[in-house]
Amino acid sequence: MKTKRYFLPEKELPNEWYNIQADMTNKPMPMLNPATRKPVTVEELSVLFSEEVSKQELNTTDRWIPIPDEVREKYTYYRSTPLVRAYGLEKALDTPAHIYFKNESVSPVGSHKLNSALAQAYYCKKEGVTNVTTETGAGQWGAALSYAASLFGLEAAVYQVKISYEQKPYRRSMMQVFGAQVTPSPSMSTRAGKDIITVNPNHQGSLGTAISEAVELARMTPNCKYTLGSVLSHVTLHQTVIGLEAEKQMEMAGEYPDVVIACFGGGSNFGGLAFPFLRHNLLDGKKTRFIAAEPASCPKLTSGKFEYDFGDESGYTPLLPMYTLGHKFTPANIHAGGLRYHGAGVIVSQLMKDNLMEAVDILQLDSFKAGCLFAKAEGIIPAPESCHAIAATINEALKCKESGQEKVLLFNLSGHGLVDMSAYDQYLAGNLVNY
Amino acid sequence: MKTKRYFLPEKELPNEWYNIQADMTNKPMPMLNPATRKPVTVEELSVLFSEEVSKQELNTTDRWIPIPDEVREKYTYYRSTPLVRAYGLEKALDTPAHIYFKNESVSPVGSHKLNSALAQAYYCKKEGVTNVTTETGAGQWGAALSYAASLFGLEAAVYQVKISYEQKPYRRSMMQVFGAQVTPSPSMSTRAGKDIITVNPNHQGSLGTAISEAVELARMTPNCKYTLGSVLSHVTLHQTVIGLEAEKQMEMAGEYPDVVIACFGGGSNFGGLAFPFLRHNLLDGKKTRFIAAEPASCPKLTSGKFEYDFGDESGYTPLLPMYTLGHKFTPANIHAGGLRYHGAGVIVSQLMKDNLMEAVDILQLDSFKAGCLFAKAEGIIPAPESCHAIAATINEALKCKESGQEKVLLFNLSGHGLVDMSAYDQYLAGNLVNY
Repeated sequence: MKTKRYFLPEKELPNEWYNIQADMTNKPMPMLNPATRKPVTVEELSVLFSEEVSKQELNTTDRWIPIPDEVREKYTYYRSTPLVRAYGLEKALDTPAHIYFKNESVSPVGSHKLNSALAQAYYCKKEGVTNVTTETGAGQWGAALSYAASLFGLEAAVYQVKISYEQKPYRRSMMQVFGAQVTPSPSMSTRAGKDIITVNPNHQGSLGTAISEAVELARMTPNCKYTLGSVLSHVTLHQTVIGLEAEKQMEMAGEYPDVVIACFGGGSNFGGLAFPFLRHNLLDGKKTRFIAAEPASCPKLTSGKFEYDFGDESGYTPLLPMYTLGHKFTPANIHAGGLRYHGAGVIVSQLMKDNLMEAVDILQLDSFKAGCLFAKAEGIIPAPESCHAIAATINEALKCKESGQEKVLLFNLSGHGLVDMSAYDQYLAGNLVNY
Repeated sequence: MKTKRYFLPEKELPNEWYNIQADMTNKPMPMLNPATRKPVTVEELSVLFSEEVSKQELNTTDRWIPIPDEVREKYTYYRSTPLVRAYGLEKALDTPAHIYFKNESVSPVGSHKLNSALAQAYYCKKEGVTNVTTETGAGQWGAALSYAASLFGLEAAVYQVKISYEQKPYRRSMMQVFGAQVTPSPSMSTRAGKDIITVNPNHQGSLGTAISEAVELARMTPNCKYTLGSVLSHVTLHQTVIGLEAEKQMEMAGEYPDVVIACFGGGSNFGGLAFPFLRHNLLDGKKTRFIAAEPASCPKLTSGKFEYDFGDESGYTPLLPMYTLGHKFTPANIHAGGLRYHGAGVIVSQLMKDNLMEAVDILQLDSFKAGCLFAKAEGIIPAPESCHAIAATINEALKCKESGQEKVLLFNLSGHGLVDMSAYDQYLAGNLVNY
C-alpha cells in the first residue's frame, strides 16, 4: 500500500524555530517610529507585546531560536501535523506531478494560528502577565489565542469585528467555550470604541476598530499584553515549525519540493512553510520556487508598492517597509477574511523585492472551485483562505500535465472550512462575486 | 517529554474487522420478518442493502472479516486516528487515573461515521450499484456517506430531517460540497413524503419520515441501495477498526484499559471501540469494564425493555431483539441528535442482558459541562454526543481520585462539535433544559 500520510515521532519535533533573517543577504529595513522616524526598539515594542517576542521581532542575527519546553509540550497536542500525499487530487487532475500538503487544519482550533498563539501566551505567562488581548475578524486568530490563554491560565479578551461577531457565531462560540471574553467592536468598553460609535452608532466594525480597542485595553490594563496573529516577524518565526516538520517529512517520503505554495494574507502561514525550505535556496544552492497565492481583490505582492506604510488603518503601528496597497485600502468583501489585509510582512516584502519568491493572484470563484475539487478528492473541506493555495497548486499541476514533468509540489493547507460553510453555500448557489 | 499521541504506521493498520458474534456464548437472537415471524435472510436484506453487508449482518461465525484493500486505502486518508493521553484533563481533575481517548474527530467529516460509510459505499460500487441513499438527522452520517460516495464515484441522495436541514445548514452544505443531493424530509419526491405532507403540510420531519423516503427511493430506483449509519451489526463490525487500532496503540503506551467508555446512540461507536477489548474478557479472562453512556432522556439500556421491536417509527424494518423504549418513543429534543434513538443494536442488547457490559445515564447539562471542561483542558471541542462519554469518564476519574486508584480509562471521542456550536451557545447562555 502506498503511504498517504507522514508523521514525526514526538522526539523528532523541532526544538528550534528558524529565523530566516539571519540568512538574508539583504535584511529587511527597520520598522520606524512614526513620530521620530527612528528604528523601533525592543523597549518600545514591549510596551505592547511581551518582552520575549519584542526581542524576537528585532532579532536579525540568530538563525535558531529555541522553542521553550512548555510550548513544545503543548505542540504535542496536535503536532506533528501530517504531511499528506494528495493521491486523490493527483488522480482527479490526471497530473504526473507529485502533490503533497501539510495539513495544519488538524489543530484543535482548525488552523495554523495556534502555533504562534501558544508561544505568545506562554511568554506572557512567563513574564507575569495575567491578561492578553487581541482583535479578530472571522475568528481564526481569536479562537487560537483563546485556547492558548486557557491552556496557560491567562484571561483573554478578544475584540471581534462586529459584523463577524453577528454573522459568524460559531467561531465566537468557540472562543467562549475556551473561556474568553468576546466583545463586538466597536464597543462602548474603550475610548476608541466610544468615539467611533458616537460618530456612527451603526458602525459594523473593521479590523481597524478592533485593533484600536485591543491596543487601548492592553495599554490601560495592568499586566495585560497585546498579541497579533500575522504580519509581524515573530509570528512567522513561530510558524516555521510547519516547514521544519515538513522538511523532515518530505525526507521520509524520499522527495524534495520543486515548488512550495501557500496562501498569503499577512505572511505567517506562507513564511512558516516556505522559509525552512528557502534557507536551502539561500545556503545550499537549491532552486525551489516559492509561490504566495493572494486574492486578486487584495493583490499587494503583485500590484502593491514597496514603501513604508502603517500596519493598520488608523495609523497606530510603527511604519513598516513593505509591499502595500496603502493602509487606507479597503479590500473587497471576499470570504477569505484572513487574506483581506493591505500589506505584506517585512521579511516577505524584502524577499519579493530580491526576487527570491513569486506571487500569483487568484479570483474568488477559482478559489472555491479548487476548494470543492479538493474536498471531493481528499475529503477535507478547506478554509476559503487555503483554497487560494489549492488553486495555485492546481495551476502548477496542470502545467506539469501539459509538459509531462513529474514535479514535486508542496502546499500548506492552513485550515479547514467547517466553520465557513456559509461561504460554500453561497458559492454553490452561484451567489458569489468573482472579485 | 511525555508522549501525548500514539499513531500506527500504515502497514500496521488492521487488515480485518472483528466480528464479536463469533465469540459470544449467547449469540444475538435472530432478526425476524414481521410478516412471517421467520428469521430474516440474506436475500431479504439484500433487496435493500448491498449483498456483502447483508451477509456480514447475519454472519455469526467468522471472527475476522477482511477489510478490502480499496477500503483500507481510503482509511489511510485519516487512519490511524490518534490515541491520545489526556494529560490536560487528568490535571484539571487532579486524578491519579490515566485517561486515554481515541480521537475519531480527525476524520475528514469530523466523526467515526466514515469508517462504515467507506465500506458500505465500496461494496455498493463493487456490486455494480450506481446510486446510494440514506437518511440523516443532524447530518453526521449523511456527510460521511456523501464523502464516501464521492470517493467511489457513486451518486448519493440524502433525505435530511426537515428541521435539521433548515436549522443546521453547515452539515447540509458539507454534503453538497461533496456532491450529494440533499432533500429535506418529508418531501414531495416520494409517495411516503407526499402522504405525510398531504395530511400535515407543516410536518417538520423526523428520522422516521426520512427513513421511509430513503427506503422508498432505494426500492424504486434501479441500481440504488440503501445504507444505514448505526444500529445494525455490520455497521458496528466496520467500526471495530477503532478498537483494533486502539489495542495496538495502548500497547505502544504500555497500558491496558481497566474501563472502556463510549457514548451510546445505536451502538456503532461504542461497539467499535469496545468489542476488540471485550474479546479479551470473553477469551482471555481480562476484567475490563465497558460503559455505554446514554442520555438520561433516552435511556434504553438502563430503563428500556428487552423485546422484539421495530427499528423505525413506522414499522418498516425487521423486528429486532433489543433493549428498547418502544419504536413510538419520541426522545426529548436534546442537542445530541445522534443519541436520540429508541433502541440498542442487537449485539449490545445481548451483551447487556448477559451482564458483559454496563450503562449509565447522563443529563444534558452534565454532558455540556464535561464538554467545556474537556475543551479547555485538551483543546478539542467535542460533539454533543461525545460529551456523554466524557462525562462518564470524568465520573470514573473522580472515583479514582477518591479511592486513590491509578486506573486506566479509555474513551471514544466519536466526533468534534465544530458544526454544533449553536448548542454550546445555548448551554453557555443558560438556555438548555436539563433532561
